[in-house]
Amino acid sequence: MITHQLLRPESIVVVGASNNVHKPGGAILKNLISGGYRGELRAVNPKEQEVQGVPSFASAEEIPDTDLAILAIPAQLCPDVVETLASQKQTKAFIILSAGFGEETHEGALLEDRILEIVNKYGASLIGPNCIGLMNTWHHSVFSQPIPQLNPKGVDLISSSGATAVFILESAVTKGLQFNSVWSVGNAKQIGVEDVLAYMDENYDPEKDSNLKLLYIESIGDPDRLLFHAASLIKKGCKIAAIKAGSSESGSRAASSHTGAIASSDSAVEALFRKAGIVRCYSREELTTVGCVFTLPELRGKNFAIITHAGGPGVMLTDALSKGGLNVPRLSGAAAEELKSKLFPGASVGNPIDILATGTPEHLKLCIDYCEEEFENIDAMMAIFGTPGLVTMFDMYDVLDEKMRTCRKPIFPILPSINTAGAEVAAFLEKGHVNFADEVTLGTALSRIVNAPQPANNEIELFGVDVPRIRRIIDSVPEDGYISPHHVQSLLQAAGIPVVEEFVSSKKEDVLAFGRRCGFPVVAKVVGPVHKSDVGGVVLNIKGEEHLALEFDRMMQIPDATAIMVQPMLKGTELFIGAKYEQKFGHVVLCGLGGIFVEVLKDVSSGLAPLSYEEAYSMIHSLRAYKIIQGTRGQKGVNEDKFAEIIVRLSTLLRFATEIKEMDINPLLATETDVIAVDARIRIEK
Amino acid sequence: MITHQLLRPESIVVVGASNNVHKPGGAILKNLISGGYRGELRAVNPKEQEVQGVPSFASAEEIPDTDLAILAIPAQLCPDVVETLASQKQTKAFIILSAGFGEETHEGALLEDRILEIVNKYGASLIGPNCIGLMNTWHHSVFSQPIPQLNPKGVDLISSSGATAVFILESAVTKGLQFNSVWSVGNAKQIGVEDVLAYMDENYDPEKDSNLKLLYIESIGDPDRLLFHAASLIKKGCKIAAIKAGSSESGSRAASSHTGAIASSDSAVEALFRKAGIVRCYSREELTTVGCVFTLPELRGKNFAIITHAGGPGVMLTDALSKGGLNVPRLSGAAAEELKSKLFPGASVGNPIDILATGTPEHLKLCIDYCEEEFENIDAMMAIFGTPGLVTMFDMYDVLDEKMRTCRKPIFPILPSINTAGAEVAAFLEKGHVNFADEVTLGTALSRIVNAPQPANNEIELFGVDVPRIRRIIDSVPEDGYISPHHVQSLLQAAGIPVVEEFVSSKKEDVLAFGRRCGFPVVAKVVGPVHKSDVGGVVLNIKGEEHLALEFDRMMQIPDATAIMVQPMLKGTELFIGAKYEQKFGHVVLCGLGGIFVEVLKDVSSGLAPLSYEEAYSMIHSLRAYKIIQGTRGQKGVNEDKFAEIIVRLSTLLRFATEIKEMDINPLLATETDVIAVDARIRIEK
Repeated sequence: MITHQLLRPESIVVVGASNNVHKPGGAILKNLISGGYRGELRAVNPKEQEVQGVPSFASAEEIPDTDLAILAIPAQLCPDVVETLASQKQTKAFIILSAGFGEETHEGALLEDRILEIVNKYGASLIGPNCIGLMNTWHHSVFSQPIPQLNPKGVDLISSSGATAVFILESAVTKGLQFNSVWSVGNAKQIGVEDVLAYMDENYDPEKDSNLKLLYIESIGDPDRLLFHAASLIKKGCKIAAIKAGSSESGSRAASSHTGAIASSDSAVEALFRKAGIVRCYSREELTTVGCVFTLPELRGKNFAIITHAGGPGVMLTDALSKGGLNVPRLSGAAAEELKSKLFPGASVGNPIDILATGTPEHLKLCIDYCEEEFENIDAMMAIFGTPGLVTMFDMYDVLDEKMRTCRKPIFPILPSINTAGAEVAAFLEKGHVNFADEVTLGTALSRIVNAPQPANNEIELFGVDVPRIRRIIDSVPEDGYISPHHVQSLLQAAGIPVVEEFVSSKKEDVLAFGRRCGFPVVAKVVGPVHKSDVGGVVLNIKGEEHLALEFDRMMQIPDATAIMVQPMLKGTELFIGAKYEQKFGHVVLCGLGGIFVEVLKDVSSGLAPLSYEEAYSMIHSLRAYKIIQGTRGQKGVNEDKFAEIIVRLSTLLRFATEIKEMDINPLLATETDVIAVDARIRIEK
Repeated sequence: MITHQLLRPESIVVVGASNNVHKPGGAILKNLISGGYRGELRAVNPKEQEVQGVPSFASAEEIPDTDLAILAIPAQLCPDVVETLASQKQTKAFIILSAGFGEETHEGALLEDRILEIVNKYGASLIGPNCIGLMNTWHHSVFSQPIPQLNPKGVDLISSSGATAVFILESAVTKGLQFNSVWSVGNAKQIGVEDVLAYMDENYDPEKDSNLKLLYIESIGDPDRLLFHAASLIKKGCKIAAIKAGSSESGSRAASSHTGAIASSDSAVEALFRKAGIVRCYSREELTTVGCVFTLPELRGKNFAIITHAGGPGVMLTDALSKGGLNVPRLSGAAAEELKSKLFPGASVGNPIDILATGTPEHLKLCIDYCEEEFENIDAMMAIFGTPGLVTMFDMYDVLDEKMRTCRKPIFPILPSINTAGAEVAAFLEKGHVNFADEVTLGTALSRIVNAPQPANNEIELFGVDVPRIRRIIDSVPEDGYISPHHVQSLLQAAGIPVVEEFVSSKKEDVLAFGRRCGFPVVAKVVGPVHKSDVGGVVLNIKGEEHLALEFDRMMQIPDATAIMVQPMLKGTELFIGAKYEQKFGHVVLCGLGGIFVEVLKDVSSGLAPLSYEEAYSMIHSLRAYKIIQGTRGQKGVNEDKFAEIIVRLSTLLRFATEIKEMDINPLLATETDVIAVDARIRIEK
């Protein structure tokens, strides 16, 4: 529960306030004071009359009513103080910095439980315990450094880990990134990352609130809430980027050991971020670079002009953009020639536009104007301007500042001379701008943003899916485990997924009759033995009745054989769809090409059920082997629409059959006209 | 030609020296003075008696003999000054800062030619023109900032581009990276990147010289020299990392437009770097991070311990290392338990080792000692230590400093609090250390280094390759273009590459007789038409004589058909080998799996002919689809040794048949026992 008093307290008490600014209770008071907090500040410290100039009280009982209390006292003292303040002093918000709770011992966990009970009873907010605090434009209630520039249009940072938040800020302040708020949720006893996001969503005011959010998440406790509110915020115009630490197997082990939570699979995280429209990052450097890009005007296309007075970085940036699927189109024609004639001899305008080392601020202005007004195949500009130190860069950066404020097209400032032009860069940042010191880091971050999908809509695609029939089939399955081929086929049919026709019988005459009816060649498989291939129980490409009769006789001799299953032999490109149920996330659906693409190249993309058509297409398009689906070099492609349709329908099926814990359709055979499921396994747990 | 006077001049004259330090002629003199140059400094400036306290002469004619001359005067004045100094003043080294030469106009190019003629005549060195200069521990002859810490064991930076060198230094000084020398070769009229490397190689003294080199290259003018000297230096114990700008198609266009040189293909660059053992980087940030890693003791294995007092960065680093093929092994057992018992409650030692936010320098020392002495499955340590600002980090970093000086195992310092602990980080860097501010950037750089191959040996594998026969065949080919199937087959056989047996005839009886002899099924292809498949000229899997006879009759009716070619129908995994001749580089050999792996997934690796077995294996192992070659999930692998052998033999063939401009063997069919070329094309130009 996030109360008004947590965000905009009229009064704050620091319990355990100290004159020693090397202690949390001293540092936080110092930050509050130097942050210009305008409400009433109070301290509780039995040994002092005044702490850092703030009136001090001997105990919590003695203070006047106070909105927000910050506790920097030993863990075991916290519950009583919280009780006193909540019950007697109208305190509706608590930030508990102290460690020594559930993260350390069982006794600590019990203390935490008691505190939670009290704050919930009195309708108060609780941040922490074991956190660095919360800072926003109203109050700097953190004990840590650095304090970034705070600004209502800066980014909101919400972090599972206090130390990581601090280090993210280190990386951010160097770039000039400003913040609206920084939340370190610590043990997140009452308020976790999802809760902060939910509050921001439910109270979102596009006029007043920041629309930029950065998240650092160590474990996703409530994926549904995270998904719902992240997607909702993004649909309202917000931009969200996040690190989910623990994306590798070892990293996941490390994260679990750090947080004590069960790790979620990386494909589940990937699927959730895709569905929500969150830009996924893997390092602090990447997260803050993406945050800086967020602060610039929205990109309207993928075509960039690079304006520079140094060739090398322009080339490296061109490489990075191209690799990320972005373009640095050649500039030519009358306008380009005209621009060239206004620059120094030797300057080039082909893109990158190189005004030479001797290029002037006036030249930069001209280049920007041409990109803004004349070059229609340009959507945004990158300006790379450093210095070997002969002249100052103030004039050059003034041009950038002015143009960034007035141009419709975004301009990305890349100012590499952070030492030599340190004063100029600092002055530029003070005007509220950001700086990308490394061009390739920017190029990579941009491609992450441009390639992130839009948030999905929340509707379930029901058309053609027979939900009552699905429920009847699931309910009729007698026991847990892999269900019979017959049930598998019925379920897929009920979801409107085309399944290869098949026939099972222990009677030779019936099997032969089916072969005649569906047409040869056919495939025959023994029913009964589990590892069919190992016992010679699968025969492909049976071309006539006589051959089928022979195979029937042979297969029925295999131990455990109860019947023979016959299917027409289809041809096509092998596709794959799989799904598994992951606790809290629901069904994660995977798709890809079959065979080695899944098994060796791990070329699969993931989505969270239920899936929309847009999501299914986005999953298909993000496969490395997508060109094979499109068709390439004389090979015909496959029917992408039908593949997407099957992915969507399967996800709907799963939504109404949560008993399915694991399934795959492998292969589906796809041609230009059809995609048909050939083999499938479904495991249920009721 | 690099003279002693360029590196260790006893006297330097700045022609065009100025009191205005905002001009190159002023800035370079200032840098020389503040760099503590100990030789004789002179200025040429007709208007002054003294420039910045240095005696000034009215013209070059009037100065005493001088070793090194720096020219900061208009381009058209340079040739005469160079002539005067070289002929009359014993000047054996020139650094020409001035622009306005070949990079701008034809007249400028003529000036450059004249200067080159003079310096060559007098045996003098020339750096530039159009450069920022050269700095080393002896003299700071650059007009640019920043000036990094110079140290004989620092890195050597050699850059095609002055501005890029400056920006690389910006990124380096922040990390504490120290330099032995920085070369900006400008127009490289006499001395280019390859020449500097050649000099370093030919004069390498392991006792005195730096063994660390960073290169920024815009065009590779002389690949053979680069390869030879880079590989030679690396074999002598050096480490080299390089950026070759222009790795994408657009980037390559940008680089050509910047340098005026013909772009080399990215696969040629990749092949050259692989052969030389150069670590390839793509950004300034990456290059300087790799440079910092180079300064640490050599890694002896891939197992890392992460020691930290903040969970989050440890998890992100674990992710980055794992993705790069490095390990963060779990620590357990008696030693781990013992270590845990000495830390605060709640600390974890599973790896990452988390000593908690309250962990002390003594705890850090303990952890390092255990990793150094007790944990045998640990090869190196990563220490992540920042601060929220409550206490200073001097003590913590003193422990790091001491342990880095005394431990056998490398310790990587990750100090994220570059603002809050700015003073502590600066003090740490002043002791000669580097700092990796972002853990993931370090993890990625490390994996680039660990995964870079060793330099190849230079021998040509001749065993089983019949060189005289290869020459006879090439010499007998009548004209340029694709050579006949018969010649292709003979060439491959002469190189000892197994080729599928094939038979060509226009006589039906002979064709049928061959089919009987080699055994059915066979493949038949029409000879004559170019696009065989399009006209129905390829039939696979012909199972008997009757079928072959029918196909013979049908195919001979195809327009332009002159004969029919018959091969036995082989089965196996399709492999691919290709090669093209690239100017200056020689033959670039590509290998991969056939079909979609090459055409769609672009999963190929490249090497420069001639190739050793080690190189061929390294090429094969770096394929994404390598697991298919190994065998996977019930699919048998293929004979990797024979694949490597064919790659090596083909590269030898190419080395003795440079007339081959383009060729591919596609497919080779590979089984567990054999790899056989099934189809090949060779294009020659004499």
